[in-house]
Amino acid sequence: MAPRTACFLVIGNEILSGRTQDANVRVLAQALNHQGIRLVEVRVIPDIPAHIITTVNECRARFDLLFTSGGIGPTHDDITAACIAEAFNVPLICHEESFRQLEALFPAGSFNKARQRMAWLPQGAAPIKNSVSTAPGFSLGNVHVMAGVPRIFQAMVSWLIPQLEAGSPLSSVSWYSYDVYEGDLAEPLTTLQHDYPMLDIGSYPFDAGPKRGVALVAKGYDDQAVSHAGAALKHLLQGLGFTPLEGDPPRPNI
Amino acid sequence: MAPRTACFLVIGNEILSGRTQDANVRVLAQALNHQGIRLVEVRVIPDIPAHIITTVNECRARFDLLFTSGGIGPTHDDITAACIAEAFNVPLICHEESFRQLEALFPAGSFNKARQRMAWLPQGAAPIKNSVSTAPGFSLGNVHVMAGVPRIFQAMVSWLIPQLEAGSPLSSVSWYSYDVYEGDLAEPLTTLQHDYPMLDIGSYPFDAGPKRGVALVAKGYDDQAVSHAGAALKHLLQGLGFTPLEGDPPRPNI
Repeated sequence: MAPRTACFLVIGNEILSGRTQDANVRVLAQALNHQGIRLVEVRVIPDIPAHIITTVNECRARFDLLFTSGGIGPTHDDITAACIAEAFNVPLICHEESFRQLEALFPAGSFNKARQRMAWLPQGAAPIKNSVSTAPGFSLGNVHVMAGVPRIFQAMVSWLIPQLEAGSPLSSVSWYSYDVYEGDLAEPLTTLQHDYPMLDIGSYPFDAGPKRGVALVAKGYDDQAVSHAGAALKHLLQGLGFTPLEGDPPRPNI
Repeated sequence: MAPRTACFLVIGNEILSGRTQDANVRVLAQALNHQGIRLVEVRVIPDIPAHIITTVNECRARFDLLFTSGGIGPTHDDITAACIAEAFNVPLICHEESFRQLEALFPAGSFNKARQRMAWLPQGAAPIKNSVSTAPGFSLGNVHVMAGVPRIFQAMVSWLIPQLEAGSPLSSVSWYSYDVYEGDLAEPLTTLQHDYPMLDIGSYPFDAGPKRGVALVAKGYDDQAVSHAGAALKHLLQGLGFTPLEGDPPRPNI
Protein backbone atom coordinates (compact mmCIF):
# COMPACT_ATOMS: atom_id res chain seq x y z
CA MET A 1 0.00 0.00 0.00
CA ALA A 2 1.31 3.46 -0.90
CA PRO A 3 2.11 5.55 2.17
CA ARG A 4 -0.20 8.41 3.07
CA THR A 5 0.91 11.82 1.79
CA ALA A 6 1.61 14.93 3.85
CA CYS A 7 2.22 18.62 3.21
CA PHE A 8 3.87 21.01 5.67
CA LEU A 9 2.92 24.69 5.66
CA VAL A 10 5.45 26.95 7.37
CA ILE A 11 3.62 30.20 8.16
CA GLY A 12 5.98 33.07 8.85
CA ASN A 13 7.33 36.29 7.40
CA GLU A 14 10.54 35.74 9.37
CA ILE A 15 11.57 32.75 7.24
CA LEU A 16 10.74 34.54 3.97
CA SER A 17 12.70 37.64 5.00
CA GLY A 18 15.78 35.53 5.73
CA ARG A 19 15.81 36.64 9.37
CA THR A 20 15.23 33.12 10.67
CA GLN A 21 16.60 29.80 9.44
CA ASP A 22 13.91 27.11 9.43
CA ALA A 23 14.65 24.20 11.73
CA ASN A 24 11.27 22.48 11.72
CA VAL A 25 11.13 20.82 8.28
CA ARG A 26 13.79 18.33 9.20
CA VAL A 27 12.18 17.47 12.56
CA LEU A 28 8.79 16.82 10.99
CA ALA A 29 10.29 14.92 8.00
CA GLN A 30 12.14 12.51 10.24
CA ALA A 31 9.14 11.89 12.51
CA LEU A 32 6.94 11.23 9.45
CA ASN A 33 9.51 8.84 7.91
CA HIS A 34 9.43 6.85 11.11
CA GLN A 35 5.62 6.75 11.09
CA GLY A 36 5.50 5.67 7.43
CA ILE A 37 3.92 8.91 6.15
CA ARG A 38 5.45 10.54 3.06
CA LEU A 39 6.22 14.28 3.20
CA VAL A 40 5.51 15.33 -0.39
CA GLU A 41 5.63 19.12 -0.26
CA VAL A 42 6.61 22.01 1.99
CA ARG A 43 5.41 25.57 1.50
CA VAL A 44 6.59 28.68 3.31
CA ILE A 45 4.02 31.47 3.15
CA PRO A 46 3.64 34.93 4.74
CA ASP A 47 1.29 36.03 7.56
CA ILE A 48 -1.37 37.21 5.09
CA PRO A 49 -4.90 35.87 5.75
CA ALA A 50 -5.95 35.36 2.10
CA HIS A 51 -2.67 33.60 1.32
CA ILE A 52 -3.03 31.29 4.33
CA ILE A 53 -6.70 30.45 3.76
CA THR A 54 -6.27 29.68 0.04
CA THR A 55 -3.19 27.54 0.65
CA VAL A 56 -4.79 25.60 3.54
CA ASN A 57 -7.82 24.76 1.43
CA GLU A 58 -5.75 23.77 -1.59
CA CYS A 59 -3.35 21.60 0.41
CA ARG A 60 -5.82 19.88 2.74
CA ALA A 61 -7.72 18.75 -0.35
CA ARG A 62 -4.61 17.63 -2.22
CA PHE A 63 -2.75 15.73 0.51
CA ASP A 64 -3.88 13.18 3.09
CA LEU A 65 -2.47 15.22 5.96
CA LEU A 66 -1.58 18.89 6.36
CA PHE A 67 0.71 20.20 9.10
CA THR A 68 1.30 23.87 9.84
CA SER A 69 3.80 25.74 12.01
CA GLY A 70 3.73 29.33 13.23
CA GLY A 71 1.26 32.06 14.08
CA ILE A 72 -0.38 30.62 17.20
CA GLY A 73 0.91 32.99 19.91
CA PRO A 74 -0.91 35.90 21.58
CA THR A 75 0.10 38.81 19.30
CA HIS A 76 -1.55 40.54 16.32
CA ASP A 77 0.54 38.55 13.80
CA ASP A 78 -0.73 35.25 15.26
CA ILE A 79 -3.62 34.65 12.89
CA THR A 80 -3.38 30.95 12.08
CA ALA A 81 -6.35 29.78 14.20
CA ALA A 82 -8.64 32.45 12.72
CA CYS A 83 -7.51 31.54 9.18
CA ILE A 84 -8.10 27.81 9.76
CA ALA A 85 -11.58 28.59 11.12
CA GLU A 86 -12.30 30.60 7.99
CA ALA A 87 -10.87 27.88 5.71
CA PHE A 88 -13.18 25.32 7.34
CA ASN A 89 -16.05 27.83 7.52
CA VAL A 90 -16.55 27.30 11.27
CA PRO A 91 -16.57 29.92 14.06
CA LEU A 92 -13.65 30.55 16.39
CA ILE A 93 -14.92 29.64 19.86
CA CYS A 94 -13.51 29.66 23.37
CA HIS A 95 -12.17 26.18 24.18
CA GLU A 96 -13.21 25.93 27.85
CA GLU A 97 -10.61 23.38 28.97
CA SER A 98 -7.75 25.34 27.38
CA PHE A 99 -9.07 28.57 28.89
CA ARG A 100 -9.07 27.11 32.42
CA GLN A 101 -5.58 25.64 31.97
CA LEU A 102 -4.18 28.95 30.73
CA GLU A 103 -5.93 30.90 33.48
CA ALA A 104 -4.37 28.63 36.12
CA LEU A 105 -0.88 29.20 34.71
CA PHE A 106 -0.72 32.99 34.70
CA PRO A 107 -0.34 35.08 37.89
CA ALA A 108 -3.47 36.97 38.89
CA GLY A 109 -3.98 40.07 36.73
CA SER A 110 -1.65 38.97 33.91
CA PHE A 111 -4.14 36.69 32.10
CA ASN A 112 -5.03 39.57 29.82
CA LYS A 113 -7.17 39.67 26.68
CA ALA A 114 -4.23 38.83 24.40
CA ARG A 115 -3.45 35.68 26.41
CA GLN A 116 -7.12 34.69 26.63
CA ARG A 117 -7.14 34.83 22.82
CA MET A 118 -4.89 31.74 22.80
CA ALA A 119 -7.82 29.65 24.14
CA TRP A 120 -9.95 30.49 21.09
CA LEU A 121 -9.87 27.60 18.62
CA PRO A 122 -11.92 26.73 15.53
CA GLN A 123 -15.13 24.87 16.48
CA GLY A 124 -14.45 21.13 16.56
CA ALA A 125 -10.68 21.45 17.09
CA ALA A 126 -8.88 19.09 19.48
CA PRO A 127 -5.84 20.56 21.31
CA ILE A 128 -2.33 19.24 20.57
CA LYS A 129 -0.58 18.83 23.90
CA ASN A 130 3.03 19.77 24.52
CA SER A 131 5.20 19.56 27.58
CA VAL A 132 7.07 22.86 27.29
CA SER A 133 4.63 25.73 26.79
CA THR A 134 1.06 27.03 26.72
CA ALA A 135 1.08 27.39 22.92
CA PRO A 136 -2.33 26.29 21.65
CA GLY A 137 -1.71 23.72 18.91
CA PHE A 138 -4.76 21.87 17.61
CA SER A 139 -6.04 19.30 15.10
CA LEU A 140 -9.11 19.85 12.93
CA GLY A 141 -9.99 17.27 10.28
CA ASN A 142 -6.75 16.35 8.50
CA VAL A 143 -5.07 19.64 9.50
CA HIS A 144 -2.63 19.79 12.43
CA VAL A 145 -1.63 23.25 13.64
CA MET A 146 1.62 23.62 15.60
CA ALA A 147 3.90 26.31 17.03
CA GLY A 148 6.78 27.88 15.08
CA VAL A 149 9.27 28.08 17.95
CA PRO A 150 11.43 24.98 17.32
CA ARG A 151 11.51 23.74 20.93
CA ILE A 152 7.70 23.83 21.13
CA PHE A 153 7.25 22.49 17.59
CA GLN A 154 9.42 19.52 18.47
CA ALA A 155 7.44 18.78 21.63
CA MET A 156 4.18 18.88 19.66
CA VAL A 157 5.58 16.60 16.93
CA SER A 158 6.71 14.10 19.56
CA TRP A 159 3.23 14.00 21.05
CA LEU A 160 1.18 14.07 17.85
CA ILE A 161 2.92 11.98 15.17
CA PRO A 162 2.97 8.63 17.03
CA GLN A 163 -0.84 8.89 17.37
CA LEU A 164 -1.37 9.06 13.61
CA GLU A 165 -2.17 5.89 11.69
CA ALA A 166 1.17 4.28 10.86
CA GLY A 167 2.44 2.82 7.57
CA SER A 168 5.69 1.00 6.81
CA PRO A 169 8.52 3.25 7.94
CA LEU A 170 10.82 4.77 5.31
CA SER A 171 14.10 2.89 5.23
CA SER A 172 17.27 4.16 3.71
CA VAL A 173 20.86 3.02 3.12
CA SER A 174 23.77 5.36 2.37
CA TRP A 175 27.28 4.72 1.08
CA TYR A 176 29.85 7.39 0.26
CA SER A 177 33.36 7.63 -1.15
CA TYR A 178 35.92 10.39 -1.31
CA ASP A 179 37.35 11.61 -4.65
CA VAL A 180 34.58 10.17 -6.81
CA TYR A 181 32.55 12.58 -9.00
CA GLU A 182 28.84 12.31 -9.85
CA GLY A 183 29.67 12.31 -13.56
CA ASP A 184 31.57 9.01 -13.12
CA LEU A 185 28.55 7.31 -11.54
CA ALA A 186 25.73 8.60 -13.70
CA GLU A 187 25.30 5.65 -16.06
CA PRO A 188 25.33 2.77 -13.54
CA LEU A 189 23.03 4.81 -11.24
CA THR A 190 20.52 5.20 -14.06
CA THR A 191 20.54 1.43 -14.52
CA LEU A 192 20.09 0.88 -10.79
CA GLN A 193 17.14 3.29 -10.64
CA HIS A 194 15.53 1.33 -13.50
CA ASP A 195 16.04 -1.93 -11.58
CA TYR A 196 14.37 -0.49 -8.44
CA PRO A 197 11.57 1.76 -9.74
CA MET A 198 9.83 1.70 -6.33
CA LEU A 199 12.85 3.30 -4.62
CA ASP A 200 14.51 6.72 -4.74
CA ILE A 201 18.14 6.33 -5.75
CA GLY A 202 19.94 9.64 -5.16
CA SER A 203 23.49 10.92 -5.47
CA TYR A 204 24.67 13.87 -3.37
CA PRO A 205 28.04 15.61 -3.76
CA PHE A 206 29.57 16.66 -0.45
CA ASP A 207 32.44 18.91 0.49
CA ALA A 208 34.18 18.12 3.78
CA GLY A 209 36.95 20.69 4.02
CA PRO A 210 39.90 19.65 1.83
CA LYS A 211 38.21 16.37 0.89
CA ARG A 212 35.16 15.99 -1.25
CA GLY A 213 33.14 13.14 -2.72
CA VAL A 214 29.69 11.79 -3.41
CA ALA A 215 27.13 10.04 -1.20
CA LEU A 216 24.73 7.52 -2.72
CA VAL A 217 21.37 6.89 -1.08
CA ALA A 218 18.66 4.26 -1.65
CA LYS A 219 15.36 5.05 0.05
CA GLY A 220 11.89 3.61 0.11
CA TYR A 221 9.11 1.85 1.98
CA ASP A 222 10.16 -1.68 0.90
CA ASP A 223 12.81 -2.64 3.44
CA GLN A 224 14.17 -5.60 1.50
CA ALA A 225 14.47 -3.74 -1.80
CA VAL A 226 16.32 -0.92 0.01
CA SER A 227 18.78 -3.40 1.46
CA HIS A 228 19.44 -5.01 -1.96
CA ALA A 229 19.84 -1.64 -3.67
CA GLY A 230 22.19 -0.56 -0.86
CA ALA A 231 24.45 -3.54 -1.53
CA ALA A 232 24.43 -2.63 -5.24
CA LEU A 233 25.52 0.95 -4.41
CA LYS A 234 28.43 -0.39 -2.38
CA HIS A 235 29.54 -2.66 -5.24
CA LEU A 236 29.18 0.18 -7.72
CA LEU A 237 31.70 2.30 -5.77
CA GLN A 238 34.03 -0.66 -5.28
CA GLY A 239 33.84 -1.61 -8.96
CA LEU A 240 35.05 1.88 -9.92
CA GLY A 241 38.04 1.53 -7.57
CA PHE A 242 36.75 3.71 -4.70
CA THR A 243 36.50 2.71 -1.04
CA PRO A 244 32.83 2.61 0.01
CA LEU A 245 32.09 3.92 3.50
CA GLU A 246 28.73 3.23 5.11
CA GLY A 247 26.40 5.96 6.37
CA ASP A 248 26.40 9.70 5.79
CA PRO A 249 29.59 11.63 4.99
CA PRO A 250 31.08 13.89 7.70
CA ARG A 251 29.31 16.97 6.31
CA PRO A 252 26.34 15.62 4.37
CA ASN A 253 24.62 18.98 4.11
CA ILE A 254 27.13 20.86 2.01
CA MET B 1 5.48 51.20 -6.29
CA ALA B 2 4.94 47.74 -4.81
CA PRO B 3 8.06 45.56 -5.01
CA ARG B 4 8.12 42.74 -7.54
CA THR B 5 7.18 39.34 -6.15
CA ALA B 6 9.27 36.17 -6.18
CA CYS B 7 8.76 32.48 -5.46
CA PHE B 8 11.56 30.01 -4.70
CA LEU B 9 11.16 26.36 -5.66
CA VAL B 10 13.51 24.00 -3.83
CA ILE B 11 13.63 20.78 -5.86
CA GLY B 12 14.94 17.87 -3.88
CA ASN B 13 13.92 14.64 -2.21
CA GLU B 14 16.80 15.07 0.23
CA ILE B 15 15.16 18.07 1.93
CA LEU B 16 11.76 16.36 2.12
CA SER B 17 13.26 13.20 3.62
CA GLY B 18 14.98 15.23 6.35
CA ARG B 19 18.42 14.04 5.23
CA THR B 20 19.54 17.56 4.32
CA GLN B 21 18.88 20.86 6.06
CA ASP B 22 18.08 23.61 3.56
CA ALA B 23 20.58 26.47 3.61
CA ASN B 24 19.56 28.27 0.42
CA VAL B 25 16.30 29.98 1.39
CA ARG B 26 18.05 32.40 3.68
CA VAL B 27 20.77 33.24 1.12
CA LEU B 28 18.23 34.00 -1.61
CA ALA B 29 15.91 35.89 0.77
CA GLN B 30 18.66 38.24 1.89
CA ALA B 31 19.90 38.88 -1.66
CA LEU B 32 16.33 39.65 -2.80
CA ASN B 33 15.71 42.00 0.16
CA HIS B 34 18.76 43.96 -0.87
CA GLN B 35 17.58 44.15 -4.47
CA GLY B 36 14.08 45.28 -3.44
CA ILE B 37 12.31 42.09 -4.59
CA ARG B 38 9.81 40.46 -2.21
CA LEU B 39 10.10 36.71 -1.58
CA VAL B 40 6.43 35.75 -1.16
CA GLU B 41 6.51 31.96 -1.15
CA VAL B 42 8.90 29.01 -0.97
CA ARG B 43 7.95 25.48 -2.03
CA VAL B 44 9.96 22.33 -1.51
CA ILE B 45 8.97 19.59 -3.97
CA PRO B 46 10.27 16.13 -4.87
CA ASP B 47 12.20 15.04 -8.00
CA ILE B 48 9.00 13.96 -9.79
CA PRO B 49 8.56 15.38 -13.32
CA ALA B 50 4.78 15.96 -13.17
CA HIS B 51 5.10 17.67 -9.77
CA ILE B 52 7.92 19.93 -11.01
CA ILE B 53 6.24 20.88 -14.31
CA THR B 54 2.86 21.70 -12.73
CA THR B 55 4.45 23.75 -9.96
CA VAL B 56 6.74 25.67 -12.34
CA ASN B 57 3.82 26.62 -14.56
CA GLU B 58 1.62 27.60 -11.62
CA CYS B 59 4.30 29.69 -9.94
CA ARG B 60 5.79 31.42 -12.98
CA ALA B 61 2.28 32.65 -13.80
CA ARG B 62 1.50 33.73 -10.26
CA PHE B 63 4.72 35.55 -9.29
CA ASP B 64 6.88 38.08 -11.14
CA LEU B 65 10.00 35.94 -10.71
CA LEU B 66 10.57 32.24 -10.06
CA PHE B 67 13.85 30.85 -8.76
CA THR B 68 14.65 27.13 -8.48
CA SER B 69 17.45 25.17 -6.83
CA GLY B 70 18.50 21.57 -7.33
CA GLY B 71 18.49 18.88 -9.98
CA ILE B 72 20.98 20.30 -12.49
CA GLY B 73 23.91 17.86 -12.15
CA PRO B 74 24.85 14.97 -14.44
CA THR B 75 22.92 12.07 -12.81
CA HIS B 76 19.55 10.44 -13.49
CA ASP B 77 17.85 12.42 -10.69
CA ASP B 78 18.92 15.74 -12.29
CA ILE B 79 15.80 16.44 -14.30
CA THR B 80 15.18 20.16 -13.75
CA ALA B 81 16.30 21.35 -17.22
CA ALA B 82 14.11 18.76 -18.97
CA CYS B 83 11.12 19.71 -16.79
CA ILE B 84 11.57 23.44 -17.46
CA ALA B 85 11.76 22.72 -21.20
CA GLU B 86 8.52 20.79 -20.95
CA ALA B 87 6.86 23.50 -18.83
CA PHE B 88 7.76 26.10 -21.50
CA ASN B 89 6.98 23.65 -24.30
CA VAL B 90 10.39 24.14 -25.95
CA PRO B 91 12.98 21.48 -26.88
CA LEU B 92 16.09 20.75 -24.85
CA ILE B 93 19.01 21.61 -27.13
CA CYS B 94 22.78 21.49 -26.86
CA HIS B 95 24.07 24.91 -25.78
CA GLU B 96 27.22 25.14 -27.91
CA GLU B 97 29.15 27.61 -25.75
CA SER B 98 28.49 25.61 -22.56
CA PHE B 99 29.45 22.38 -24.36
CA ARG B 100 32.81 23.80 -25.42
CA GLN B 101 33.51 25.18 -21.93
CA LEU B 102 32.69 21.85 -20.27
CA GLU B 103 34.73 19.91 -22.83
CA ALA B 104 37.77 22.09 -22.13
CA LEU B 105 37.49 21.47 -18.38
CA PHE B 106 37.45 17.67 -18.29
CA PRO B 107 40.54 15.54 -18.96
CA ALA B 108 40.49 13.70 -22.28
CA GLY B 109 38.20 10.66 -22.15
CA SER B 110 36.27 11.72 -19.05
CA PHE B 111 33.82 14.10 -20.79
CA ASN B 112 31.31 11.28 -20.99
CA LYS B 113 27.67 11.28 -22.05
CA ALA B 114 26.42 12.10 -18.53
CA ARG B 115 28.65 15.17 -18.36
CA GLN B 116 27.75 16.26 -21.88
CA ARG B 117 24.12 16.20 -20.75
CA MET B 118 24.87 19.22 -18.54
CA ALA B 119 25.28 21.36 -21.71
CA TRP B 120 21.71 20.63 -22.81
CA LEU B 121 19.45 23.56 -21.91
CA PRO B 122 15.90 24.51 -22.87
CA GLN B 123 15.85 26.43 -26.16
CA GLY B 124 16.20 30.17 -25.48
CA ALA B 125 17.87 29.74 -22.09
CA ALA B 126 20.78 32.01 -21.07
CA PRO B 127 23.42 30.45 -18.78
CA ILE B 128 23.84 31.68 -15.18
CA LYS B 129 27.57 32.00 -14.54
CA ASN B 130 29.24 30.96 -11.33
CA SER B 131 32.83 31.08 -10.21
CA VAL B 132 33.06 27.74 -8.41
CA SER B 133 31.76 24.94 -10.63
CA THR B 134 30.55 23.74 -14.01
CA ALA B 135 26.95 23.42 -12.82
CA PRO B 136 24.70 24.63 -15.65
CA GLY B 137 22.34 27.22 -14.16
CA PHE B 138 20.20 29.17 -16.62
CA SER B 139 17.48 31.79 -17.01
CA LEU B 140 14.46 31.36 -19.26
CA GLY B 141 11.72 34.00 -19.25
CA ASN B 142 11.07 34.87 -15.60
CA VAL B 143 12.46 31.53 -14.36
CA HIS B 144 15.99 31.28 -12.95
CA VAL B 145 17.37 27.77 -12.44
CA MET B 146 20.23 27.30 -9.97
CA ALA B 147 22.23 24.52 -8.28
CA GLY B 148 21.24 22.92 -4.98
CA VAL B 149 24.75 22.61 -3.51
CA PRO B 150 24.89 25.67 -1.21
CA ARG B 151 28.37 26.86 -2.23
CA ILE B 152 27.38 26.87 -5.91
CA PHE B 153 23.90 28.26 -5.22
CA GLN B 154 25.48 31.17 -3.37
CA ALA B 155 27.89 31.89 -6.24
CA MET B 156 24.99 31.90 -8.71
CA VAL B 157 22.88 34.19 -6.50
CA SER B 158 25.80 36.64 -6.20
CA TRP B 159 26.14 36.79 -9.97
CA LEU B 160 22.45 36.82 -10.92
CA ILE B 161 20.49 38.90 -8.41
CA PRO B 162 22.37 42.22 -8.88
CA GLN B 163 21.50 42.04 -12.60
CA LEU B 164 17.75 41.94 -11.94
CA GLU B 165 15.75 45.16 -12.04
CA ALA B 166 16.05 46.71 -8.59
CA GLY B 167 13.34 48.18 -6.34
CA SER B 168 13.69 49.95 -2.99
CA PRO B 169 15.58 47.60 -0.68
CA LEU B 170 13.76 46.08 2.29
CA SER B 171 14.73 47.89 5.47
CA SER B 172 14.26 46.56 8.92
CA VAL B 173 14.83 47.64 12.53
CA SER B 174 14.96 45.25 15.50
CA TRP B 175 14.84 45.81 19.24
CA TYR B 176 14.80 43.12 21.89
CA SER B 177 14.54 42.82 25.67
CA TYR B 178 15.11 40.01 28.12
CA ASP B 179 12.37 38.82 30.48
CA VAL B 180 9.49 40.34 28.55
CA TYR B 181 6.71 38.03 27.26
CA GLU B 182 4.76 38.40 24.01
CA GLY B 183 1.51 38.44 25.94
CA ASP B 184 2.58 41.69 27.65
CA LEU B 185 3.17 43.43 24.33
CA ALA B 186 0.22 42.24 22.29
CA GLU B 187 -2.08 45.24 22.68
CA PRO B 188 0.40 48.05 21.94
CA LEU B 189 1.81 46.05 19.02
CA THR B 190 -1.66 45.76 17.50
CA THR B 191 -2.00 49.54 17.72
CA LEU B 192 1.42 50.05 16.13
CA GLN B 193 0.59 47.69 13.25
CA HIS B 194 -2.58 49.73 12.64
CA ASP B 195 -0.52 52.94 12.59
CA TYR B 196 1.89 51.50 10.00
CA PRO B 197 -0.24 49.33 7.71
CA MET B 198 2.48 49.36 4.99
CA LEU B 199 5.00 47.67 7.32
CA ASP B 200 5.30 44.23 8.88
CA ILE B 201 5.47 44.54 12.65
CA GLY B 202 6.52 41.20 14.13
CA SER B 203 7.30 39.83 17.59
CA TYR B 204 9.59 36.82 18.01
CA PRO B 205 10.22 35.00 21.29
CA PHE B 206 13.83 33.86 21.72
CA ASP B 207 15.55 31.55 24.12
CA ALA B 208 19.24 32.22 24.76
CA GLY B 209 20.26 29.59 27.26
CA PRO B 210 19.13 30.61 30.75
CA LYS B 211 17.78 33.95 29.51
CA ARG B 212 14.82 34.44 27.29
CA GLY B 213 12.85 37.34 25.87
CA VAL B 214 11.17 38.79 22.82
CA ALA B 215 12.51 40.55 19.72
CA LEU B 216 10.38 43.15 17.96
CA VAL B 217 10.92 43.84 14.27
CA ALA B 218 9.59 46.52 11.92
CA LYS B 219 10.17 45.79 8.25
CA GLY B 220 9.17 47.30 4.93
CA TYR B 221 10.14 49.10 1.74
CA ASP B 222 9.52 52.62 3.13
CA ASP B 223 12.77 53.47 4.87
CA GLN B 224 11.42 56.45 6.81
CA ALA B 225 8.33 54.61 8.09
CA VAL B 226 10.56 51.73 9.25
CA SER B 227 12.76 54.12 11.18
CA HIS B 228 9.74 55.78 12.89
CA ALA B 229 8.17 52.42 13.75
CA GLY B 230 11.55 51.24 15.09
CA ALA B 231 11.68 54.18 17.48
CA ALA B 232 8.13 53.35 18.60
CA LEU B 233 9.17 49.72 19.32
CA LYS B 234 12.03 50.97 21.49
CA HIS B 235 9.70 53.27 23.45
CA LEU B 236 7.18 50.48 23.85
CA LEU B 237 9.75 48.26 25.60
CA GLN B 238 11.01 51.18 27.70
CA GLY B 239 7.47 52.18 28.68
CA LEU B 240 6.85 48.70 30.10
CA GLY B 241 10.01 48.92 32.21
CA PHE B 242 12.30 46.73 30.05
CA THR B 243 15.73 47.67 28.70
CA PRO B 244 15.59 47.83 24.89
CA LEU B 245 18.66 46.48 23.07
CA GLU B 246 19.18 47.22 19.39
CA GLY B 247 19.58 44.51 16.75
CA ASP B 248 18.93 40.78 16.87
CA PRO B 249 19.10 38.81 20.13
CA PRO B 250 22.11 36.48 20.67
CA ARG B 251 20.19 33.47 19.36
CA PRO B 252 17.43 34.90 17.18
CA ASN B 253 16.56 31.60 15.56
CA ILE B 254 15.35 29.67 18.57
